[in-house]
Amino acid sequence: MNTRELVELAQQLRVDSVRASAAAGSGHPTSSMSAADLMAVLLAHHLRYDFDRPAHPGNDRFVLSKGHASPLLYSAYKAAGAVDDEELLTFRKLGSRLEGHPTPRQLPWVETATGSLGQGLPVGVGIALSGKRLDRTGYRVWVLCGDSELAEGSVWEAAEHAGHEHLDNLTAIVDVNRLGQRGPTRHGHDLDAYARRFQAFGWHTVEVDGHDVDAVDRAYGEAISTKGQPTAILARTLKGKGVADVEDREGLHGKPLKNADDAIAELGGVRDIRVEVHEPPAARMLHAVRTGHLELPRFEKGEEVATRNAFGQALAALGTGRGDVVALDGEVGDSTRAEFFAKEHPDRYFECYIAEQQMVAAAVGLAARGWVPYASTFAAFLTRAYDFVRMASISGSGINLVGSHAGVAIGQDGPSQMGLEDLAMMRAVHGSTVLYPCDANQTAHLVAEMAGLEGVRYLRTSRGESPVIYGPDEEFPIGGSKVLRASDQDRMTIVAAGVTVPEALAAADSLDREGVKVRVIDLYSVKPVDRLTLRQAAEETGCLVTVEDHHEEGGLGDAVLDAFGDGRPVPRLVRLAVRTMPGSGSPDEQLHAAGIDAESIAAAGKLLVEEAVVR
Amino acid sequence: MNTRELVELAQQLRVDSVRASAAAGSGHPTSSMSAADLMAVLLAHHLRYDFDRPAHPGNDRFVLSKGHASPLLYSAYKAAGAVDDEELLTFRKLGSRLEGHPTPRQLPWVETATGSLGQGLPVGVGIALSGKRLDRTGYRVWVLCGDSELAEGSVWEAAEHAGHEHLDNLTAIVDVNRLGQRGPTRHGHDLDAYARRFQAFGWHTVEVDGHDVDAVDRAYGEAISTKGQPTAILARTLKGKGVADVEDREGLHGKPLKNADDAIAELGGVRDIRVEVHEPPAARMLHAVRTGHLELPRFEKGEEVATRNAFGQALAALGTGRGDVVALDGEVGDSTRAEFFAKEHPDRYFECYIAEQQMVAAAVGLAARGWVPYASTFAAFLTRAYDFVRMASISGSGINLVGSHAGVAIGQDGPSQMGLEDLAMMRAVHGSTVLYPCDANQTAHLVAEMAGLEGVRYLRTSRGESPVIYGPDEEFPIGGSKVLRASDQDRMTIVAAGVTVPEALAAADSLDREGVKVRVIDLYSVKPVDRLTLRQAAEETGCLVTVEDHHEEGGLGDAVLDAFGDGRPVPRLVRLAVRTMPGSGSPDEQLHAAGIDAESIAAAGKLLVEEAVVR
Repeated sequence: MNTRELVELAQQLRVDSVRASAAAGSGHPTSSMSAADLMAVLLAHHLRYDFDRPAHPGNDRFVLSKGHASPLLYSAYKAAGAVDDEELLTFRKLGSRLEGHPTPRQLPWVETATGSLGQGLPVGVGIALSGKRLDRTGYRVWVLCGDSELAEGSVWEAAEHAGHEHLDNLTAIVDVNRLGQRGPTRHGHDLDAYARRFQAFGWHTVEVDGHDVDAVDRAYGEAISTKGQPTAILARTLKGKGVADVEDREGLHGKPLKNADDAIAELGGVRDIRVEVHEPPAARMLHAVRTGHLELPRFEKGEEVATRNAFGQALAALGTGRGDVVALDGEVGDSTRAEFFAKEHPDRYFECYIAEQQMVAAAVGLAARGWVPYASTFAAFLTRAYDFVRMASISGSGINLVGSHAGVAIGQDGPSQMGLEDLAMMRAVHGSTVLYPCDANQTAHLVAEMAGLEGVRYLRTSRGESPVIYGPDEEFPIGGSKVLRASDQDRMTIVAAGVTVPEALAAADSLDREGVKVRVIDLYSVKPVDRLTLRQAAEETGCLVTVEDHHEEGGLGDAVLDAFGDGRPVPRLVRLAVRTMPGSGSPDEQLHAAGIDAESIAAAGKLLVEEAVVR
Repeated sequence: MNTRELVELAQQLRVDSVRASAAAGSGHPTSSMSAADLMAVLLAHHLRYDFDRPAHPGNDRFVLSKGHASPLLYSAYKAAGAVDDEELLTFRKLGSRLEGHPTPRQLPWVETATGSLGQGLPVGVGIALSGKRLDRTGYRVWVLCGDSELAEGSVWEAAEHAGHEHLDNLTAIVDVNRLGQRGPTRHGHDLDAYARRFQAFGWHTVEVDGHDVDAVDRAYGEAISTKGQPTAILARTLKGKGVADVEDREGLHGKPLKNADDAIAELGGVRDIRVEVHEPPAARMLHAVRTGHLELPRFEKGEEVATRNAFGQALAALGTGRGDVVALDGEVGDSTRAEFFAKEHPDRYFECYIAEQQMVAAAVGLAARGWVPYASTFAAFLTRAYDFVRMASISGSGINLVGSHAGVAIGQDGPSQMGLEDLAMMRAVHGSTVLYPCDANQTAHLVAEMAGLEGVRYLRTSRGESPVIYGPDEEFPIGGSKVLRASDQDRMTIVAAGVTVPEALAAADSLDREGVKVRVIDLYSVKPVDRLTLRQAAEETGCLVTVEDHHEEGGLGDAVLDAFGDGRPVPRLVRLAVRTMPGSGSPDEQLHAAGIDAESIAAAGKLLVEEAVVR
């Protein structure tokens, strides 16, 4: 396209953004209008993408990090012939795939859900890593960012990672329109301020007038030709560009234009320009899954093995069995045991240093490219990335997260290192799976099973050694549980998981010696939960004790009650959990202080069978 | 102290770090040894601090961001005479106040709990903001950081905030010992790499040999004399400095020295040097609380008012009534309505831009200085700061967090903007209070009551307008609830909160028309929960329906069951919550699609009273 045609295309994108938002009665047209020229030039001249074959391995990848500018994205889809005008005007309506903020669940061209700012670039880094280190089909990754979102630390985690990895297949296009939601940004139109920051992190930068299509064209060319560094294009733009009523004005974020018809006229009216987007180069997937033989580690009953060790060994074995498995570390691989994978599969290991947001974002990016990522750190530190986990669930991203050092059982390090909210956090994520194994063989099997699930999967591992209680050939289906003690005289059921399973067994033995038979359930699948077994136990034993190394809210106890939230009779129960703020102490001291050791379980159980109120 | 004395003091700090870790059998001596000279010079020459009067308004503030180097901190306390040698050797033992990672709960000299990396500097920025803009007693804030933790984006949120605010009362001391937990950092000993980054964010930087006490002394002097900019001192150090066996060696992170006695001998043996720390200058608190008259906004029954609006108005009124209330915004103050406070009290308003981690950290810092912070953003985006909220609870920090735009009720914007995990996340925080008002008067009262609570407080507000159902003089105690419908023929209780309260009332009216009397409880205090009222309702009506605009895990339904976890009989119940991934649509469409509107409640309730299983 020549200059005039590019300008016309940009005006069409603006008009369509105004039209879509007007039809919806909501949306962010002004944030779309600032970036219309940037989008037009990219679409017409630089993006290599086959909209009919979004899975084409040679396709460039585009991420709209400023997800609220969705009208611009959908207008671009229309210009590329991927959606028609009628669909464009369904924007933000119930059932439309053109949602308020883009998600990939119905739109195959969307790489990742955006709308929580500062996430597009980190995920783009993950895709670029995939392109550079794994896929190697030569695609480029283009991320359109807003300027406000550069205040998010996650952007600088991404900048650091991309700079360090020399991701020259990655371009950040920053739409510096100087206005955030509630007013001016910190740096306004000071492009140099942003350039200095990106340069410090090892990026090449280009400053450009974002409304000069020829200059933008040259900037993209410069990004493509820059080797050894990612490029940030810092584009000076005006929010609401092209409509005098709204251009560069505050107080208009996220609002449809008041006089849409006038605005459309001012922008030159409705057009129907169709862009021929460049085809991607021929490419084949280099990472076709090598499905080798999966030989999980085997542990003998009675051995003492930490579940984190079993995780590391199983992950390394899974990496051997499956060529599509990759691992990511938050600079604690020696503790989580992800380093076992690193030693065997260094080519598929991504060290993310202490940057949990970037670690999870990279996992989402890798999953978007078909890889099966396992990202691990301390359970406590996954809280750092909760917004990314939440957004991953909106993307329907198939990521595996593994949190080690769960609970008070870690001992001396104290509460900052104890995952005590992780079960609550992960259970509340839509469509998630939450697993908490108690022994090494169970861990190994669950690590392998996670790979095949939908959505966000979470596995919780423990620091200390624990006895192997299952044989290596036992099966552990997701949504299942194990009944470890049962008789027809059981007067109560103890439901435990992870480190509380051995405690529950000891408590059961102790109660047995006092003549009280109790059932013990190992609820390794915290979500989905084994409703049938829990209901049966409730019916047969009358009451339950749940015991967990987690705060009392949102964890195992709540998961158990999920089996009884449909109107059926609910058993009496006592919930044992960590109700105080732990300090330092040995693991045994911690379990005792929290009231979740065998002695505490037995005491609570006894009161319960005597029908006393316990708390 | 002269050079030799400083060197001796540093060696004492090393020896004591080795001894404390040896006595504990765990801990991080090598991470302490690298920073011993930095600490010695600071303590002896530059820190102005009265250990007998930690609340002295003129005291400098020291934050150990690399919290795992706690042996160094406690050794410094010993050198300053604040703890004795006997206590030093209780390190990491059950009941000792010298925990694995420092917390302020028993140690009055600790400003904030650390141990999750990348949090000390952001909290330090909050304290420095307090010093610069509010307290104005001239204190300096010194933050000792590790080099690994500079990979955390939160550090760059802090750098951006401090640079932009010209916090020349803040010094970051970076112990660049080149080794993280599992191996070398990204930049090793490349001090320039860090300097470039800090400079780009507007900081003054000093590069120094961190083991040359005179050079370190000069660096601190330069930091103090630098005006208009915060200073980062980038100190080249060796992990394990001083003991050949461990110095600059990998694989020794977080491990006591194997041959402690030999190491102590190599370091010159045990010393008992006592440092006379400089007294703080005379200062008085300028921010003595002006307790004016609190005049909350009043709303008339039947008005339609969004609870976010009521929050903004109440916060502004609270700011007038209490001089110690401050507000922080994540660049969405026009949406959360925090801007109402900004207009009336701009001197106590902190714009944090889109950097939720820094926003919460700044709140923690301000709370540490005695202010009562209210930090607000969309409920969904508080997930970004979960690790900071978790650590705030360990600090026992009295912060108020307010999340707007909760749930599917926001409508068209879609799931990225919907807080659907916030109740689970906030409930799982130890010692937290979780509030979810349904009308404007209730909101106003709760905003005021939050200020006086202990620990982390969370208030959830809604985007859309809702009817005022309570009079302006009604009281809403924390831990209470409101019974909105009751009779002695109630066959069921609907428990709702926030946007589901009007739906519950409509469902009750509809069931009433069908001859089914139901009780309705407004459970505005989600945590602590009103156990007595719930138990009474269960006894009197037999069964419950809970209905919430939140995912099914960890929210209102689980909170209700918290009343029945002590062995008492549990009522049959049906839990209505958001079980699908919402898309775009109008607020009414969203409530209906999620099955939490009046029609859905009535349908579920009818089945429940008929003793059917509902799900």
